[in-house]
Amino acid sequence: MAVDASLLPNLRNIATRLRIESIRATTASASGHPTTCMSAADLMAALFFAEMRFDPASPQHPLADRLVMSKGHAAPLLYAMWSEAGFIPREQLTDLRLFTSDLEGHPTPRLPFVDVATGSLGQGLCAAIGTALNARRIGSDYRTYCLMGDGETAEGSVWEAASVAHLHKLDALCAIIDINALGQSRATELEHDMDTYRRRWQAFGWHAIVIDGHDMAQIVAAYAEARATKGRPTVVLARTLKGQGLALTAGKPNWHGKALSAEQATAAYAELEAQLEPETKPTPAIAAPPAAPKAEAPGALPAPAYKLGDMVATREAYGTGIARLGAVDPRVVALDADVKNSTFSERFEAVHPERFYQCFIAEQVMVGAAMGLAARGAVPFPSTFAAFFTRAADFIRMAAISGVNIKLAGSHAGVSIGEDGPSQMALEDFAMTTAQPNFTVLYPSDAVSTEQLIGEMARHHGPMYMRTSRPKTPVIYNNDETFPIGGLKVLRQSADDKATVIGAGVTLFEALKAYDALKAEGIAIRVIDLYSIQPIDAASLIAAGQQTGRLITVEDHYLAGGIGDAVARAVAPAGLTVTHLAVREIPRSGKPDELVDHYGISARSIIEAIR
Amino acid sequence: MAVDASLLPNLRNIATRLRIESIRATTASASGHPTTCMSAADLMAALFFAEMRFDPASPQHPLADRLVMSKGHAAPLLYAMWSEAGFIPREQLTDLRLFTSDLEGHPTPRLPFVDVATGSLGQGLCAAIGTALNARRIGSDYRTYCLMGDGETAEGSVWEAASVAHLHKLDALCAIIDINALGQSRATELEHDMDTYRRRWQAFGWHAIVIDGHDMAQIVAAYAEARATKGRPTVVLARTLKGQGLALTAGKPNWHGKALSAEQATAAYAELEAQLEPETKPTPAIAAPPAAPKAEAPGALPAPAYKLGDMVATREAYGTGIARLGAVDPRVVALDADVKNSTFSERFEAVHPERFYQCFIAEQVMVGAAMGLAARGAVPFPSTFAAFFTRAADFIRMAAISGVNIKLAGSHAGVSIGEDGPSQMALEDFAMTTAQPNFTVLYPSDAVSTEQLIGEMARHHGPMYMRTSRPKTPVIYNNDETFPIGGLKVLRQSADDKATVIGAGVTLFEALKAYDALKAEGIAIRVIDLYSIQPIDAASLIAAGQQTGRLITVEDHYLAGGIGDAVARAVAPAGLTVTHLAVREIPRSGKPDELVDHYGISARSIIEAIR
Repeated sequence: MAVDASLLPNLRNIATRLRIESIRATTASASGHPTTCMSAADLMAALFFAEMRFDPASPQHPLADRLVMSKGHAAPLLYAMWSEAGFIPREQLTDLRLFTSDLEGHPTPRLPFVDVATGSLGQGLCAAIGTALNARRIGSDYRTYCLMGDGETAEGSVWEAASVAHLHKLDALCAIIDINALGQSRATELEHDMDTYRRRWQAFGWHAIVIDGHDMAQIVAAYAEARATKGRPTVVLARTLKGQGLALTAGKPNWHGKALSAEQATAAYAELEAQLEPETKPTPAIAAPPAAPKAEAPGALPAPAYKLGDMVATREAYGTGIARLGAVDPRVVALDADVKNSTFSERFEAVHPERFYQCFIAEQVMVGAAMGLAARGAVPFPSTFAAFFTRAADFIRMAAISGVNIKLAGSHAGVSIGEDGPSQMALEDFAMTTAQPNFTVLYPSDAVSTEQLIGEMARHHGPMYMRTSRPKTPVIYNNDETFPIGGLKVLRQSADDKATVIGAGVTLFEALKAYDALKAEGIAIRVIDLYSIQPIDAASLIAAGQQTGRLITVEDHYLAGGIGDAVARAVAPAGLTVTHLAVREIPRSGKPDELVDHYGISARSIIEAIR
Repeated sequence: MAVDASLLPNLRNIATRLRIESIRATTASASGHPTTCMSAADLMAALFFAEMRFDPASPQHPLADRLVMSKGHAAPLLYAMWSEAGFIPREQLTDLRLFTSDLEGHPTPRLPFVDVATGSLGQGLCAAIGTALNARRIGSDYRTYCLMGDGETAEGSVWEAASVAHLHKLDALCAIIDINALGQSRATELEHDMDTYRRRWQAFGWHAIVIDGHDMAQIVAAYAEARATKGRPTVVLARTLKGQGLALTAGKPNWHGKALSAEQATAAYAELEAQLEPETKPTPAIAAPPAAPKAEAPGALPAPAYKLGDMVATREAYGTGIARLGAVDPRVVALDADVKNSTFSERFEAVHPERFYQCFIAEQVMVGAAMGLAARGAVPFPSTFAAFFTRAADFIRMAAISGVNIKLAGSHAGVSIGEDGPSQMALEDFAMTTAQPNFTVLYPSDAVSTEQLIGEMARHHGPMYMRTSRPKTPVIYNNDETFPIGGLKVLRQSADDKATVIGAGVTLFEALKAYDALKAEGIAIRVIDLYSIQPIDAASLIAAGQQTGRLITVEDHYLAGGIGDAVARAVAPAGLTVTHLAVREIPRSGKPDELVDHYGISARSIIEAIR
């Protein structure tokens, strides 16, 4: 695309108006980040009004180009862009950061033009990989742009993303880095060392274009060059000044996160308005995307086909289940961090290789890409060892804020993995996931419930986590048994039960062993399979507590933040308390049974607690 | 250092013995990773027996060179090295992975030659930065080596470390990457593309040396070149074969994490022993480090100097406190992720710039480097926004496993930060930190308790987390008040109390407001400042519950995993339950007071709960 020089004044004027609105909004709220908006205003004016293809009236159009504002503190700039495009009435921009407005301090998907929440730096490019992969999934040529700050390129997640975008040859992805050389508290590490930036991105396989980020002709040309680049992603490395446009702020330190005073703002409007240029022709309308395709119509996962008593690890049933789900639901994709043979996600890859995305050992980009995929209609199942989802805890936090439809699956949880030792044992995954109030947290114990719950995960929208286990466990449910989210199963009960033991995963089988041993002594206990930890069936737990007089939870998880706490919160309104059997210290290597027993979560400990 | 060619047979023979012992141990335990040991055996033989300076009888010697085995699944190799050096009796090597042995599946500091636990890939280089920074702190020329796998360089934390090591010109740091081209489930992304590896590391400012990792002369020369390189760190990029040494395994896929059978092992010993060469002279003894200096003698933090009623944010008191602590305790260092002007760690930098380490926006390496510093005797205080510690959740998990003496401090927690919105609000930091059973978790409410608790943090060993707050709060304690870890303060009480309200941080002041309002109506309540959330003063909480009949927690944290759960666990054995006031949904931007009230943790909600 040749640069139409006659339109450059129009774009420069738009940039000036974006600066004015960014200042106006932040001064109105007396907080926020005007200067980081000002450094990127030229880059965004050209992108939004001369390059991107989208429908300003329908930000969620499925074939529209995407913009991820990774430097989320430039939210006022994003809001000003959508106002300039006609989506947000200009007078609403000064509602920035009010409790009554969706124009939050950092962008969230409460706004329909925001795919994923940003504001935790270094995450946007990971999500942008997801929206770019989704274009490939649906056969669209829509493009994804990601505006990043220079400071955030210190985050390792950016380099995970750089590597994965190159691996998947995402030429529909263009990163734009606003290199204004000033971080929050000081100059950035590389300041304006454009050559080092270039060499780093090139070494990661990207096409790198270095420009003056305030030269509109260079900006427009860079986007055209990015669009023409095939086989690899492009990064536009733009040398800018923070606070560009005003003598007061341009390139000046100590302006991070500070609004101008009303007096400073008034002077700023005059200084900026004086920069407006005559325009020789009207600004063309924003290019429209193609007509939207009809919505995808996923089928439901059929019931599995196990036999009672079959020995199947739930991680293996997980692999089988997502592979089967993928056959009936084209939205379903899987992502791996080089453990597909342990999580069994390789079974999905074997039958749906085009919807299987390898990320290698990089959990942050795996989860971030899943967030982007989910935001565009896919139903992503990223999986790894449950312990290594802690690597992506900040992404999980942002996924919750975004409310995206991701389905995390973590295998190899707890001391029951045995010999590999504590570094490989997830013992805090429920603490991490249940903390997020909108996360669904599931923990199946056998193969049937695993597959049935995978069906539930696909059927219901929202962020979810499933924990699977390493050891083989017997199939205990019939194939047509249903497992609604928020439910539980009472596996053993009688009118004489002296206590209720609540387990899930490997500990459910310890509870069943305890049941058998106690039964032989004439002591009856109730046994509950708490496959849904959040939401939780409080009414049934309270009923069981009231009927049996005692609630005991047993879990292959640390004491704090696990199943015991979830049950305790559920039953506290009824005045009931819970005895927690959980792992109470840092464990060590050993044989699975040995560890389960030593750390107090075996049938022996359950029996002791009941006696 | 010129290569003494006459010693190469000795080193090759050591490498062969390391391979044999790696196979012997994993076959004995019928699990583990022999082939990843075999690819690195030559690299480690040369490093340990011809390059490093240490005392095999005293692995924790303060001036000894350090080796961080970042590819922790090569643990059997590490154990074989210490056996070859004389520290571990050879016959113990086959106790690998037994519950009764400290030779765990992945290395932990239960072994005195392990500084930090590894096994979560991509963390070792971050810790190695810490041990290298510590050398600078104590004025030693000891060197730090870090053995990494190629697969783990996909982790973003590695590139955070690459950037920070270059920034700090850590020429005493040498990374060694065992590029065997095979990951767990498939070939690595870059396989043996040595040139791309070289360009990536060079772009991050490292001196890069590409070698054949099975050519002993090249290995020895590379270490000499690394030692001679000044002003920047060195990376040795070693082309290797996984399973090198045996025809059965060398360069073969599908051997990851698999032990040889007894039969395969027997054949392997014969094949390897046949590779042993004649030696022309004895292997020189390992070079000894200089005599150990006398232990550091830290002073105690003097009491602070505030006036009752002064308005001081606890984050500001934190900055003041660590700066004062640094003056009396030379072990104390501070680390920042470019938010020093928000966390107030800039006050430490102002007076102790040589012990202040900037990491820019890279929380993983900040925490990882702190772990390495702590392992070598420093008392590191890494600080950032509490929300962004979730970025380092996996490092925090490994810090717990390591039991290292790190002191995390997270500011800007909860909805009370206001306008910036949910991405900046830590609402799950207690869930993350209390899940780790050996973490101490503190939450001061005023400036005096903040500074006194900083003194406690320095005085006691172990991983700790302190949450500080953004808003200014009044000083409510006298300067000489003490705050033992595991304690609480009863601020209001009478014989007529109808309930106990337990707050901390900003909610303590809501509880005090509720006290005043209820008192005016003739209703007495007890108010507790729960400044120590883990460990927790269960006895005092139970007593308060029994005396007042009702316990209500109020916290600027999500419902699950916070103060309410901690109190509930503490009082459950006495049959007491807790009413939780906590944030129960994803919040949004707004003014601090507006949000505290809207999300149900203000005085109004406390009063409603009591009525």
